[in-house]
Amino acid sequence: MIVEMRFKAPKAETEAVIAKAKSLGFSVQPNVGTDKTVIAILGSNTGQISTDIFAVLPGVEHVTRIMKPYKLASREFNPKGTIVKVGGVSIGGNQLVVMAGPCAVESKKQLEEAARVVKAAGAVIMRGGAFKPRSSPFSFQGLEKAGLELLAEARQKYGLPIITEVVDPSQVELVAQYVDILQVGSRNMQNFSLLTEIGKMKMPVVLKRGLANTVTEWLTAADYILAGGNKDVILCERGIRTFEDSTRFSMDISSIPVIKKASHLPIIADPSHAAGHYSLVPALAKAAIAAGADGLLIEVHPNPKEALVDGLQSLTPSDFKRLMGEIKLISEAMGRTL
Amino acid sequence: MIVEMRFKAPKAETEAVIAKAKSLGFSVQPNVGTDKTVIAILGSNTGQISTDIFAVLPGVEHVTRIMKPYKLASREFNPKGTIVKVGGVSIGGNQLVVMAGPCAVESKKQLEEAARVVKAAGAVIMRGGAFKPRSSPFSFQGLEKAGLELLAEARQKYGLPIITEVVDPSQVELVAQYVDILQVGSRNMQNFSLLTEIGKMKMPVVLKRGLANTVTEWLTAADYILAGGNKDVILCERGIRTFEDSTRFSMDISSIPVIKKASHLPIIADPSHAAGHYSLVPALAKAAIAAGADGLLIEVHPNPKEALVDGLQSLTPSDFKRLMGEIKLISEAMGRTL
Amino acid sequence: MIVEMRFKAPKAETEAVIAKAKSLGFSVQPNVGTDKTVIAILGSNTGQISTDIFAVLPGVEHVTRIMKPYKLASREFNPKGTIVKVGGVSIGGNQLVVMAGPCAVESKKQLEEAARVVKAAGAVIMRGGAFKPRSSPFSFQGLEKAGLELLAEARQKYGLPIITEVVDPSQVELVAQYVDILQVGSRNMQNFSLLTEIGKMKMPVVLKRGLANTVTEWLTAADYILAGGNKDVILCERGIRTFEDSTRFSMDISSIPVIKKASHLPIIADPSHAAGHYSLVPALAKAAIAAGADGLLIEVHPNPKEALVDGLQSLTPSDFKRLMGEIKLISEAMGRTL
Amino acid sequence: MIVEMRFKAPKAETEAVIAKAKSLGFSVQPNVGTDKTVIAILGSNTGQISTDIFAVLPGVEHVTRIMKPYKLASREFNPKGTIVKVGGVSIGGNQLVVMAGPCAVESKKQLEEAARVVKAAGAVIMRGGAFKPRSSPFSFQGLEKAGLELLAEARQKYGLPIITEVVDPSQVELVAQYVDILQVGSRNMQNFSLLTEIGKMKMPVVLKRGLANTVTEWLTAADYILAGGNKDVILCERGIRTFEDSTRFSMDISSIPVIKKASHLPIIADPSHAAGHYSLVPALAKAAIAAGADGLLIEVHPNPKEALVDGLQSLTPSDFKRLMGEIKLISEAMGRTL
Repeated sequence: MIVEMRFKAPKAETEAVIAKAKSLGFSVQPNVGTDKTVIAILGSNTGQISTDIFAVLPGVEHVTRIMKPYKLASREFNPKGTIVKVGGVSIGGNQLVVMAGPCAVESKKQLEEAARVVKAAGAVIMRGGAFKPRSSPFSFQGLEKAGLELLAEARQKYGLPIITEVVDPSQVELVAQYVDILQVGSRNMQNFSLLTEIGKMKMPVVLKRGLANTVTEWLTAADYILAGGNKDVILCERGIRTFEDSTRFSMDISSIPVIKKASHLPIIADPSHAAGHYSLVPALAKAAIAAGADGLLIEVHPNPKEALVDGLQSLTPSDFKRLMGEIKLISEAMGRTL
Repeated sequence: MIVEMRFKAPKAETEAVIAKAKSLGFSVQPNVGTDKTVIAILGSNTGQISTDIFAVLPGVEHVTRIMKPYKLASREFNPKGTIVKVGGVSIGGNQLVVMAGPCAVESKKQLEEAARVVKAAGAVIMRGGAFKPRSSPFSFQGLEKAGLELLAEARQKYGLPIITEVVDPSQVELVAQYVDILQVGSRNMQNFSLLTEIGKMKMPVVLKRGLANTVTEWLTAADYILAGGNKDVILCERGIRTFEDSTRFSMDISSIPVIKKASHLPIIADPSHAAGHYSLVPALAKAAIAAGADGLLIEVHPNPKEALVDGLQSLTPSDFKRLMGEIKLISEAMGRTL
Repeated sequence: MIVEMRFKAPKAETEAVIAKAKSLGFSVQPNVGTDKTVIAILGSNTGQISTDIFAVLPGVEHVTRIMKPYKLASREFNPKGTIVKVGGVSIGGNQLVVMAGPCAVESKKQLEEAARVVKAAGAVIMRGGAFKPRSSPFSFQGLEKAGLELLAEARQKYGLPIITEVVDPSQVELVAQYVDILQVGSRNMQNFSLLTEIGKMKMPVVLKRGLANTVTEWLTAADYILAGGNKDVILCERGIRTFEDSTRFSMDISSIPVIKKASHLPIIADPSHAAGHYSLVPALAKAAIAAGADGLLIEVHPNPKEALVDGLQSLTPSDFKRLMGEIKLISEAMGRTL
Repeated sequence: MIVEMRFKAPKAETEAVIAKAKSLGFSVQPNVGTDKTVIAILGSNTGQISTDIFAVLPGVEHVTRIMKPYKLASREFNPKGTIVKVGGVSIGGNQLVVMAGPCAVESKKQLEEAARVVKAAGAVIMRGGAFKPRSSPFSFQGLEKAGLELLAEARQKYGLPIITEVVDPSQVELVAQYVDILQVGSRNMQNFSLLTEIGKMKMPVVLKRGLANTVTEWLTAADYILAGGNKDVILCERGIRTFEDSTRFSMDISSIPVIKKASHLPIIADPSHAAGHYSLVPALAKAAIAAGADGLLIEVHPNPKEALVDGLQSLTPSDFKRLMGEIKLISEAMGRTL
């Protein structure tokens, strides 16, 4: 942590900062410049304390963090990288993993048809929402428990591991009984009660990036789950909120190589929610793979025109099949298998 | 809802859109231009259905919403405005309401000292956090139930109604037993499980704006609480996330007059979280009042240098006292009482 | 400047950074922590060199700037503050200055009517655009030289100093012959050719903030003008681009107190461009004054319904007169005169 | 254009809107709903008039644009797409075009070394800046005319067409004498004087996206150049400003497929400015190609450690050579040649 003192701050103020840092067990080195004094506060736990502790002291102009606030999610913690295993599938290794299916579970017929087509096209994990976080209380909220049962049936029948979203801490155990991967949605990335509950589980979790959260905040949220003892965290880029309005969100393609450098966790991308329109999904899916993503989460609906939720961003079975062919070519160009 | 067809879309596609709209009970008027056909879909419930229903149909270029997605929070729903009452205090009327206190409850001594000074300076409601949503799992998470008990004691002793944050749906009932106003924090604005639970209560709630949510999303979130039967929603602007980094967030001052026009709900402002630095709080507090806010939520700590959370944005007792004097002058200029 | 070395960077890499800094004449202090080495590079000109010089060296993780990149615009450069004088008006002192008039000069009749009403209501400087930077080539581009002549006539007749925008470096001298204050528009804040040309003039300039520029970039742009020898720079906050779409831009109200702390230059606000809608202008105007602005730039049109440019954000004469009365009350509450 | 009247707006107000639209030569169709009247204003030039014309009328709630404000840059204007030719190179066809070279021309030696290595690795156009728009007046501003001469010499010697930035309308003709492609930088995307001057030229121009401009504004800026008679506009995505701070800008990867759908102009990407760090450039370059870009603009410096400008985002010759190999594989997967 770097504490910059104000221009001509009295010596006593500088000494108070030094004393505070020493009282917390840190090593301290003051750098006295011609205009300013800058104090370096060193130690491996400085990332986990608030900058406010020093910023609030008299004579302090500004405090800059050097150590990142996340620890368990950092690349240094596990330099060779994490591979998450679910069913026979490995996420984070050389093979790319495509998870596909409808936004919401609507009926047995819809779900089974979806399972059939995504499996045939090469998806290895199936997605489907039973609890839907909807921005309006007047919208369809999902089939809830009945939806979980349909998901479990489809898993049985088609042999695809299932991922579904959990939105309430009290439902984590229930949902975990029916599926293989838990998903934390974008709007819950900083729902710390939910993260804490999921941290207690021993099963994979996809942690979607909050629509207005930095990469640093995202990895710090991952630390909540990792600190609870659950090691199987997969990150998912799904677009951030910007001023641009030609897409629903702006996929932050740079976050993929940034995460690969900063963290040991696998990262996948959700081009469907980022784009908000089916016609843009293939370009974003291919771009994510070319940027180094470990997999994709794609919405596919047997009949998007009848979808109860997010039909506009869902691919039809034939569009998905065509896209899988294109992704295969990009995967090979990247030296990876699909 | 306005459906814009593609350039030279075949007549059958236009007819399919019209048929779909009629099947949902809406009235429809096609507008055939020289280059494009534009279909108006009319009816008072069009705001509550998804634009995707039409956007996904063949030949559709773009769909624009005319009716807002929120309904119960709209000004039309209650043109004369809502006044929320708590203890002897009215929020949303001519009197401005200042809520003040520490970010986190730390100890009996700290809380009582804070209560004493904020009351003496003119605050009529006390704030204090028992459950703290912290971005890192390694940070202080609040005193939890013990904190609620300290808040209830302070209320007893100083006669100030209490506002505190609730972060987990399962704790809503517990928290409600100890305090007078529930607070939904910025990161939980779209935690729909929490909103639903609070909607079942009969007590005032402050709904903070999500750091990346539009005014429309904010009012739609308010609809969740209102739809449950809880009418006492107070909105709170606390800054949005932008590219600017000289402040922690950017207070969206315009949201205050926008909300006054669009909604009947009272709106207050939290200059402390918006600014992130005590030195900027007075300017933002005065600006919010001048823009038409019904009150303020301000962090005050007996000794910010020792604060466990957010010390940098907390005012000292003497700074708060001075600010209350300045706010009084602005209130009078606005024709309001403090 | 703080150079953070990578975890376990070899000593030779650290020494290369130190040697580079010394070769540039800076004083250097290495801070060797348990995990990382952090090198402080000190000297009063470190703000004016690029961080890249060090960031590009082997073994460097990250470089943080301590000294600001702007110098002449900083508060330290002129601690007591700059007052810009034009005609008999002082900008930056105790008196608040309201500049008002139409977005574009349209005709002699329109301009004179505007001059009459803004003067009667208490404005002391008149605005009007002769060269209009329009986002589409098919829009009205302003009366250009004929517009300047109308402005000069109105100045003569009503005795109000005139402010107008200049958009092309080659027109700076021409425009300067007709008006009292030059304006650099938001889209030209980083048009360095234009800033350089204006720096050579000896007349006041209003430098509007770029719609996506930070406060630091804004003050660094001011340095271009100041470095040329023109000391009379007035800053103008006019809203930044964010995700929020209920207003045209988001007025960054916090920039006002931030600038007051960081710079000696006067700052005014333009609520008209920020809001984009006449009904929001009064609230933003009052908020800006309450936040500490030194004045306002407001669009007023004798008949907004017939305006060729930006009619929606223009006040009518009667709305402007009412607003001036409200601003007077806020000014007094702030201890300032109008 | 869709004009939404206020709830229960009197009939006379609706009629005034209709009369105004008819007076402008548009066809009008009112849609009277149960709650609101919505007026459709139709005609192929409605995109080129301001929404304010109607929004300012009494009783109007909101106006929505249907036709885009750009016209000449739209896909409808030239459905089969534009191919820009320069030297023997075609931009916008099946072949991908890589333009590479240093950010700034520094010396004959540096430039020739750069030309040699980028040509050897497969780049077909060379970049190099002679006029540098720098955010601080204290930074290196480019070699200016001497830089142009060095560029012309390098072109002669290595047979690579040259692209360079022009920043001032008065220098357009000068720069055009030395190079093959003009570049409009991000900060000048809405410098309409500059765009107008370039519109008069008959030579290719790369129009970089403004760091805070929407796709719609970008295409409308292209209309300025196209309206002047210059048909050879190439768009360049280079990252937008968002809240994320782990990269210098956020490359808006979605803009590539959006532009491909909305416009007939070729689009390339500049991963160097978007990322701001050499280690992220390869991932972004590959992602842009996979998203459908027609080429890349990449910074390469013979010795980034000695670069006067933007060394941190420049690739070394060996890194560039490796990247070209990777891009070749992605190109093939996309069915394109390099």
